[in-house]
Amino acid sequence: MSLHPLPASTLVLGGARSGKSAFAESLFGDSPALYLATGQALDGEMAERIDHHRRRRGPSWSTLEEPLDLAEALDNVLRPDRPVLVDCLTMWLSNLMHAGRDIDRSLGHLCEVLAEPAGPVVMVSNEVGMGLVPETSLGRQFRDHQGRVNQRVAAQCRKVVFVAAGLPLVLKDIP
Amino acid sequence: MSLHPLPASTLVLGGARSGKSAFAESLFGDSPALYLATGQALDGEMAERIDHHRRRRGPSWSTLEEPLDLAEALDNVLRPDRPVLVDCLTMWLSNLMHAGRDIDRSLGHLCEVLAEPAGPVVMVSNEVGMGLVPETSLGRQFRDHQGRVNQRVAAQCRKVVFVAAGLPLVLKDIP
Amino acid sequence: MSLHPLPASTLVLGGARSGKSAFAESLFGDSPALYLATGQALDGEMAERIDHHRRRRGPSWSTLEEPLDLAEALDNVLRPDRPVLVDCLTMWLSNLMHAGRDIDRSLGHLCEVLAEPAGPVVMVSNEVGMGLVPETSLGRQFRDHQGRVNQRVAAQCRKVVFVAAGLPLVLKDIP
Repeated sequence: MSLHPLPASTLVLGGARSGKSAFAESLFGDSPALYLATGQALDGEMAERIDHHRRRRGPSWSTLEEPLDLAEALDNVLRPDRPVLVDCLTMWLSNLMHAGRDIDRSLGHLCEVLAEPAGPVVMVSNEVGMGLVPETSLGRQFRDHQGRVNQRVAAQCRKVVFVAAGLPLVLKDIP
Repeated sequence: MSLHPLPASTLVLGGARSGKSAFAESLFGDSPALYLATGQALDGEMAERIDHHRRRRGPSWSTLEEPLDLAEALDNVLRPDRPVLVDCLTMWLSNLMHAGRDIDRSLGHLCEVLAEPAGPVVMVSNEVGMGLVPETSLGRQFRDHQGRVNQRVAAQCRKVVFVAAGLPLVLKDIP
Repeated sequence: MSLHPLPASTLVLGGARSGKSAFAESLFGDSPALYLATGQALDGEMAERIDHHRRRRGPSWSTLEEPLDLAEALDNVLRPDRPVLVDCLTMWLSNLMHAGRDIDRSLGHLCEVLAEPAGPVVMVSNEVGMGLVPETSLGRQFRDHQGRVNQRVAAQCRKVVFVAAGLPLVLKDIP
């Protein structure tokens, strides 16, 4: 249904500082796009990173912040002629856990929107399960939830790309 | 020597909650198969996960538990007409370390069986070396052993698949 | 400009104990080569590992140690008829941080040399960003720097290979 050359839905997966956000942005070209930020500038380090990303994207992007109700926000903003970049599902998951939200329910809502998106959407997410078992129960819970988020969103997406050292590896591509 | 469409030996490698077990199970189809479990239900969380996996596999699977003597168990149960799923090598390694076994010797035995398996076998293992250096000496030892297990088993297998977000990436495939 | 069948520049990326060093060495064949070691034998464990690697490489290799000034060392030793193996960029980064060096400046110098290398060079580096967020600020800093090192070096290299369980996956290959 999309008028845009991007697939209906794309997941860009990668480790920390793998270049996944820059790669995701590179998919968009120069036409107007919407940046849906799940992160909030809670401290100086975070504020600086958000600002750095904003300057990299340039003036053709508009920005919307939504830390928790991602499915509802996407449902409101998706449309065929303006692609959306969600950066990132890991921060969204972290926000949901801190707010005591029901993760499976929130993830279910997101997957419903992704099943028939009204316009192209690219989502960025972290791979966090390739180290040793976390020491804390909270760490293990986060890792488990993140794994489920990545699996379920990947199952809904037309295209899934793994990024390492800034370089893409296509895991799934349904035309 | 196998009558089964599965390769003689397959390693499915992935991070925690990467979907590697579900992917490994999907290779088996509907014919009878044996699940060789290396994990033990030592606590409620583990018992619940084991039970969840058992329900997912369905009634065509039989189950055998062997926490330590994996090579000997495989040698006993491998046969051409019934494939075996070993889930997982990471739990096996953890058991060996807790029991004070000689890891290299146990790994050597496993590789001997895998050199000429009497029937198809699929093994699941974790990638654990893509985080920062572990703080503890035990953590570093575990990571080193796991890396060696994965390398040596991968060298013996006909097929090696890396799974991320539930999606496979073939690393090796010898017909 | 190279007379050697190796590409002008190669990055071999992988987790701990992924077999990345052995894979990198396997690219060299039997002709004379130079091993540029960034690691120093500060303790017995490290000394043993360095010695183990040296024995594996065999007598056609000469060795040079340079913990900090990698760009300058490469500039001195690169030449068309003798390839160089740098093992590894992770240890180099660790040394730079301990010595209080300016990481971006050192990385910039390395990238200048790699832009037009006077002979074939293969570099080994760790993927460290696929676990949970590190607990300590130093850990997060290290992970961030390592990600930047890998991205910038990968961007300069003709060939980039990801290694898991001893098996290569080509991420980039520019003839």
